Amino acid sequence: MKTKMKKEKVVVILSGGMDSTTLLYDIMSKGYDVYALSFNYNQKHKKELDLAKLTCEKLNVPHKIADLSLLNDIAPSALTRDDWKVPEGHYADENMKQTVVPNRNMVMLSLATSYAIGIGATELYYGAHAGDHDIYPDCRKEFIDSMKQSISLCDWSKIELKAPYWILDKGDIVIRGKELNVDYSLTWTCYVGKEKACGKCGSCVERLEAFEKASKYFQLNFKDPIEYEGN
Amino acid sequence: MKTKMKKEKVVVILSGGMDSTTLLYDIMSKGYDVYALSFNYNQKHKKELDLAKLTCEKLNVPHKIADLSLLNDIAPSALTRDDWKVPEGHYADENMKQTVVPNRNMVMLSLATSYAIGIGATELYYGAHAGDHDIYPDCRKEFIDSMKQSISLCDWSKIELKAPYWILDKGDIVIRGKELNVDYSLTWTCYVGKEKACGKCGSCVERLEAFEKASKYFQLNFKDPIEYEGN
Repeated sequence: MKTKMKKEKVVVILSGGMDSTTLLYDIMSKGYDVYALSFNYNQKHKKELDLAKLTCEKLNVPHKIADLSLLNDIAPSALTRDDWKVPEGHYADENMKQTVVPNRNMVMLSLATSYAIGIGATELYYGAHAGDHDIYPDCRKEFIDSMKQSISLCDWSKIELKAPYWILDKGDIVIRGKELNVDYSLTWTCYVGKEKACGKCGSCVERLEAFEKASKYFQLNFKDPIEYEGN
Repeated sequence: MKTKMKKEKVVVILSGGMDSTTLLYDIMSKGYDVYALSFNYNQKHKKELDLAKLTCEKLNVPHKIADLSLLNDIAPSALTRDDWKVPEGHYADENMKQTVVPNRNMVMLSLATSYAIGIGATELYYGAHAGDHDIYPDCRKEFIDSMKQSISLCDWSKIELKAPYWILDKGDIVIRGKELNVDYSLTWTCYVGKEKACGKCGSCVERLEAFEKASKYFQLNFKDPIEYEGN
């Protein structure tokens, strides 16, 4: 991994999914002093947090998991309530809107900014990407730009929000990850929360499509290393 | 209390201090369907939360206290850490900067927005005022305007951030509160966290100045109804 010997301290929001894990490898490759921050908001797909931890151990990155269980109390959704069923099908479907935790991104970005200020970091990275835009209002460019502005004003010290994957779709991210040698066996995407990925929820469908795109790009069979139910 | 029979649902962030308590009375007087939201972030001046509860009971307003103790974990400050002493003196002093919880306002605004979306509210009120600007970067007009923008973009439903006391100082707020018959015995301002207010910390100094200004305005002795040490 080549380093440019920048010693700026930066924070990466790491969900344990493919996008933020690829972003972590990407930022590491640039030689920053990287701190990873994850959020536990009682998500059913909590496995991603364990994998985030393993990725950070592998890359030797300091990793903090913040307990955001109050988000479940303050604004329930199908992702956090045991009594609400996660819908099947493609992300673009109307019923996937139940999976939106209201304003989750602003909550996580604001807490990550507090953390960044506390440790003296100057940049905050997060893995918003082009595939998210349609169903999540808080993944749109206007929102990210406005949050960049809010974050730049919230403290006397300089904090810059960066979302470099903004223009990439999930397939492009896997292509980038392949170049960075990302260990995707340590990432989790399925929203259902069982031992193996379901292969059917919107998240799984999108993940599998991303590996297909990367396989076509590299003209090889770049298989998703995680296990799926019924396989 | 005159009502205009608007039935819009609105959320007021209620700290239990003078500004947000006055704001709650103010919004109530306009006849909205008001929900109050407070945050417990292990503040030493936790008494304000008990008083916020009493104010809501008195005004018959639904009141939620969200547990934000993770802010202490994610970004410590003199207001939340037992081992850090709250400095004495006026707010404007350099040493008061220790009392800044990094990015606290954005964190509270983002969570309040999640709450507002969850209950179907269209407006979110908070009591930022002109006295706060100098030492808190996240009380500046640029910050509030940027957060208005971010909040308006974070969801498909319309949520508007309102900070109507932006142009008022604390004295002006007490003047407004006097007109609204605010019960200031149910508000708390001291940062030190003892049984009686200390009368010496930046918060107490500012509170006492506010009552002096209101007294001059009304040309009567409008005394602060809470108890101070040494009185």
